[in-house]
Amino acid sequence: MSAENQESIIKEYTESPEANPVMESLERPKVAALDEILGKPFKVLDDGFIRVIDYMGSDESIVQAARVSYGKGTKKVHEDRGLIRYLMRHHHTTPFEMCEIKFHVRVPMDCWRQWIRHRMANVNEYSTRYSVAIDSAQTTSEQEWRIQASGNRQGSAGFAADAEGKTLTEKERYLQSLAREIYDERLKMGIAREQARKDLPLSTYTEAYWKVDLHNLLHFLYLRMDAHAQYEIRRYAEIMGQEIVAKWCPAVWEAFMDYRVNSNSFTRLEMEVLTAMTQGDKEKAIALGKSFNWLSDAGEPKKNRERAEFEDKLEGLGLKAPW
Amino acid sequence: MSAENQESIIKEYTESPEANPVMESLERPKVAALDEILGKPFKVLDDGFIRVIDYMGSDESIVQAARVSYGKGTKKVHEDRGLIRYLMRHHHTTPFEMCEIKFHVRVPMDCWRQWIRHRMANVNEYSTRYSVAIDSAQTTSEQEWRIQASGNRQGSAGFAADAEGKTLTEKERYLQSLAREIYDERLKMGIAREQARKDLPLSTYTEAYWKVDLHNLLHFLYLRMDAHAQYEIRRYAEIMGQEIVAKWCPAVWEAFMDYRVNSNSFTRLEMEVLTAMTQGDKEKAIALGKSFNWLSDAGEPKKNRERAEFEDKLEGLGLKAPW
Amino acid sequence: MSAENQESIIKEYTESPEANPVMESLERPKVAALDEILGKPFKVLDDGFIRVIDYMGSDESIVQAARVSYGKGTKKVHEDRGLIRYLMRHHHTTPFEMCEIKFHVRVPMDCWRQWIRHRMANVNEYSTRYSVAIDSAQTTSEQEWRIQASGNRQGSAGFAADAEGKTLTEKERYLQSLAREIYDERLKMGIAREQARKDLPLSTYTEAYWKVDLHNLLHFLYLRMDAHAQYEIRRYAEIMGQEIVAKWCPAVWEAFMDYRVNSNSFTRLEMEVLTAMTQGDKEKAIALGKSFNWLSDAGEPKKNRERAEFEDKLEGLGLKAPW
Amino acid sequence: MSAENQESIIKEYTESPEANPVMESLERPKVAALDEILGKPFKVLDDGFIRVIDYMGSDESIVQAARVSYGKGTKKVHEDRGLIRYLMRHHHTTPFEMCEIKFHVRVPMDCWRQWIRHRMANVNEYSTRYSVAIDSAQTTSEQEWRIQASGNRQGSAGFAADAEGKTLTEKERYLQSLAREIYDERLKMGIAREQARKDLPLSTYTEAYWKVDLHNLLHFLYLRMDAHAQYEIRRYAEIMGQEIVAKWCPAVWEAFMDYRVNSNSFTRLEMEVLTAMTQGDKEKAIALGKSFNWLSDAGEPKKNRERAEFEDKLEGLGLKAPW
Repeated sequence: MSAENQESIIKEYTESPEANPVMESLERPKVAALDEILGKPFKVLDDGFIRVIDYMGSDESIVQAARVSYGKGTKKVHEDRGLIRYLMRHHHTTPFEMCEIKFHVRVPMDCWRQWIRHRMANVNEYSTRYSVAIDSAQTTSEQEWRIQASGNRQGSAGFAADAEGKTLTEKERYLQSLAREIYDERLKMGIAREQARKDLPLSTYTEAYWKVDLHNLLHFLYLRMDAHAQYEIRRYAEIMGQEIVAKWCPAVWEAFMDYRVNSNSFTRLEMEVLTAMTQGDKEKAIALGKSFNWLSDAGEPKKNRERAEFEDKLEGLGLKAPW
Repeated sequence: MSAENQESIIKEYTESPEANPVMESLERPKVAALDEILGKPFKVLDDGFIRVIDYMGSDESIVQAARVSYGKGTKKVHEDRGLIRYLMRHHHTTPFEMCEIKFHVRVPMDCWRQWIRHRMANVNEYSTRYSVAIDSAQTTSEQEWRIQASGNRQGSAGFAADAEGKTLTEKERYLQSLAREIYDERLKMGIAREQARKDLPLSTYTEAYWKVDLHNLLHFLYLRMDAHAQYEIRRYAEIMGQEIVAKWCPAVWEAFMDYRVNSNSFTRLEMEVLTAMTQGDKEKAIALGKSFNWLSDAGEPKKNRERAEFEDKLEGLGLKAPW
Repeated sequence: MSAENQESIIKEYTESPEANPVMESLERPKVAALDEILGKPFKVLDDGFIRVIDYMGSDESIVQAARVSYGKGTKKVHEDRGLIRYLMRHHHTTPFEMCEIKFHVRVPMDCWRQWIRHRMANVNEYSTRYSVAIDSAQTTSEQEWRIQASGNRQGSAGFAADAEGKTLTEKERYLQSLAREIYDERLKMGIAREQARKDLPLSTYTEAYWKVDLHNLLHFLYLRMDAHAQYEIRRYAEIMGQEIVAKWCPAVWEAFMDYRVNSNSFTRLEMEVLTAMTQGDKEKAIALGKSFNWLSDAGEPKKNRERAEFEDKLEGLGLKAPW
Repeated sequence: MSAENQESIIKEYTESPEANPVMESLERPKVAALDEILGKPFKVLDDGFIRVIDYMGSDESIVQAARVSYGKGTKKVHEDRGLIRYLMRHHHTTPFEMCEIKFHVRVPMDCWRQWIRHRMANVNEYSTRYSVAIDSAQTTSEQEWRIQASGNRQGSAGFAADAEGKTLTEKERYLQSLAREIYDERLKMGIAREQARKDLPLSTYTEAYWKVDLHNLLHFLYLRMDAHAQYEIRRYAEIMGQEIVAKWCPAVWEAFMDYRVNSNSFTRLEMEVLTAMTQGDKEKAIALGKSFNWLSDAGEPKKNRERAEFEDKLEGLGLKAPW
């Protein structure tokens, strides 16, 4: 947060007579655009889905909580939007926790392993101790085999050639069907479900109810919509964001895109070099680069991740590094 | 959990065609009895209140989550009730997290200090940095001054005599009005609200939006409805439980009373003595009491908290200790 | 919690001069019995392990926190033990959060799926996006194939016959080695690790650092040492409890066994019948059984889970149901 | 996170033989600079303090967790520092959760109200139900009365004049001593401690054990060291950061200052204007300003918080707004 003056947009509340609100009966906020898709599955991957089961709150509920007030009030829509943007910009996160949403999802277990790492959520997962495992595993078509990225150890880049893809897909199909066959056979022989499942592939689909507040959902989306997130979970995140949150809380979604997803952060080191550059002090910029170990004593760029990150940001500003 | 056989009531789900539910559009569950009181304040203490702002889910949603299914299904009401009771009895807590409720409360800060210790909730509190403090403090009438319990260091027992109560109430009134006067004066002299508030009494009322899932709410109620909880927070808990949760999720409320609030737990030590008693083996019961250090070598009851607790439980069973 | 009088064992603190403790330098508490095994792996299953990496606190730290004091004090060991037992018996859980432990574990992913559902912990898991998957999957020997329990839908009971076990084990071996072969082949063909792993069996081992406070660890152990927990995770829990926690905080472990693991809870319904029984009022006991729907109008036991649970508890007391 | 290429510094781990570490016994990491101050109170405000009671982990433990390895390894110190900086820069937060610290703090209740809002921590607070309240309240000297900021509704700016300060301090002293006198009197008359405390001033000191992991501690410090945080809690945060964390995990502290505290974030809107500026396209910059509602149609700056924030950031870069 900058040390800038925060003249509060929340001000009107505290000086209004609403500080001691007249109590009246309420209705639960409804969001028509979300009601329309309630229960309808969005298809994800080859056999997954996301659908909204229930929700609590709306853009308006966030404003209401920020005002620790209750009523529909007389504020105009653009003031509500302004307050939401202010809250998002200044990381006042608690009002966003006042909205809650419940999803029914169907996800490959491999992907679910990443999903479940988000601890601030409520979960009921389909149990393969109680029940026979869902008879579906994520399949990979011939065109979808991704090549290991060379620079990024946890990413992928481009696709395998057709011939190789064909082989890979055939073998996958064989392995998946063999694994299922062995699973079914174990069940038929009376083996306990909890043990029979042990060699199912990670690609097997699971289902869950997943309930989360909007603040934690946005954190999930921030991480999982990112270009570095694995393709599979990114697909779920994109649909949640673009098809669901954007309909549910449009002002929040807009602020989230403007102030989180599409913002750019400059570190102390980067700010110092950038300032030298905007001052036209190329020499200082280079001296700083050397002191940060970004450049050799001769002023040549060294293999350095942080320098490369900075150059990317400069490019975003249409600037070139001074070295 | 006893080592007893848990033939699952959840069974019908997994063998039904619902395992792969046909997707259809949904409506959010509504609870008419709760809708009726939405937004209406229940008065608590002299100037506090609780009111429901919004909620998500119902008894039915818990069943739905337990079945990791969705539909209203064809289950009869008594089967839903049976499943809820089963889940409560066996501490299967995650389905209860699928319901969420949002309250607007007005509480003395002293009481709020206890409340806020429950971490698994979302909170937006009235800010006395932004706004002038609420002009109300919890007052104590002449009859309400509680005497320190002698046995229980954190409790109270009985009330002060009328004459003393009168004096105490008068002094309280004076102190509270002086504190407010000084607060107002500070504000008038331009002192920052964040500092001016520093000597307000702990009895000053605050307001907050408090949002919590049903599992964590029940945990709150279990601790705060207890006879050992402080009177003030107990009043809030009782109203939340009896006036709100009982209307919102009646089957859950009933199970909670039967299996949590009104259950009795016997420790290993207590079970051993009780078993000796039900076997009519008084000698063994006494020998056990000695080995637990509950009794002197001569078999006389020693000052021992655990022994006293056990005797209370025996009394509940209409039994007398064998010593 | 019973409505019994809680004369506080904590009392001595508040009346002692320690209420304003003289500050002095401290040393971190050390537990010699735990230091001895620090870093040493306990083998679990065929190729898993648990080892302690680091810890904070001891029995003494719990006492210290309960006294919100600091010093080693002059309290005798039996008083510390008494206070710990009191805290455990009365569900005063926050002092137990003051101890923390960090494990390094190696666990089949299938088992890890259950483990990770415990949200109040810190986790760093081995990443199969960054690194090649650990080349080990949990194998099942011919004698270890468990039969599905008939009564308990999520459990197992007994083992498969030798001949069947042999077949099952052979097929498992084939499936696991095929899955690994295909995984290795994918990597050789340049497929991204994040995708190549998708069809590894759930039995594949993963590793993680898992850090948790003692209160949440005991909750984990309570659920996962239970006879209803799956065999695999139960093995980890038993070793954590018996080999590690018992050494780390012996007074806590003893209290946990006496007041949690080996305690017995009677519901309101059960207390009513039990009371009728201890009063010798068989008729009332039967009338209650009917009203609870445990018995038919003729007084015959109905198929009812709750009644069966009660009868098990009676058996523990050496009693027979009156019907 | 930028879409930049993340060639992982973690790489060496996965290709080293350490992937299957040879198990050996361990010692708990020790940080000499922290051991020296263990238990020693840092004075805060007039009568508060912070002291470290215990800790788990060090810079090295973070590296260890990030490598999901264990050993002291053979990595040179500058590589460890590089990895820590990488983790901090890229918001890989889980390894920072592997360090834990326990404080004993003495804080005015008014300040504690803000502190306790950080939910991801373990707390044992001094109980004024069990014990007589600490006989100390935060006093304000004549020079310390802060004036309400006009721009920032929740802040203060400058100090009251001497004469006013004198009056305010005298009245504070009177109010605090009267409140204590009435409290003591209530206790003498036998009133329960839980009720007698109700009119103590918010400035009364409380004490607590507060235990937190390093990730959550940094989040606390980020918010509470900020210039917008209230002076009182800021003092605690500054001492925790500068006197304690800087000694405990020096590489983390340095990275935190460089990449969090002293970083600057530019929103999508700001990036667009800044890019127009660095391109020398003043006209576009102004057109953007109009479209964001920062400028009037005539191109005049409007009263707009977001524009003002942007201009502050420009100033940090030594730039002037183009309007």
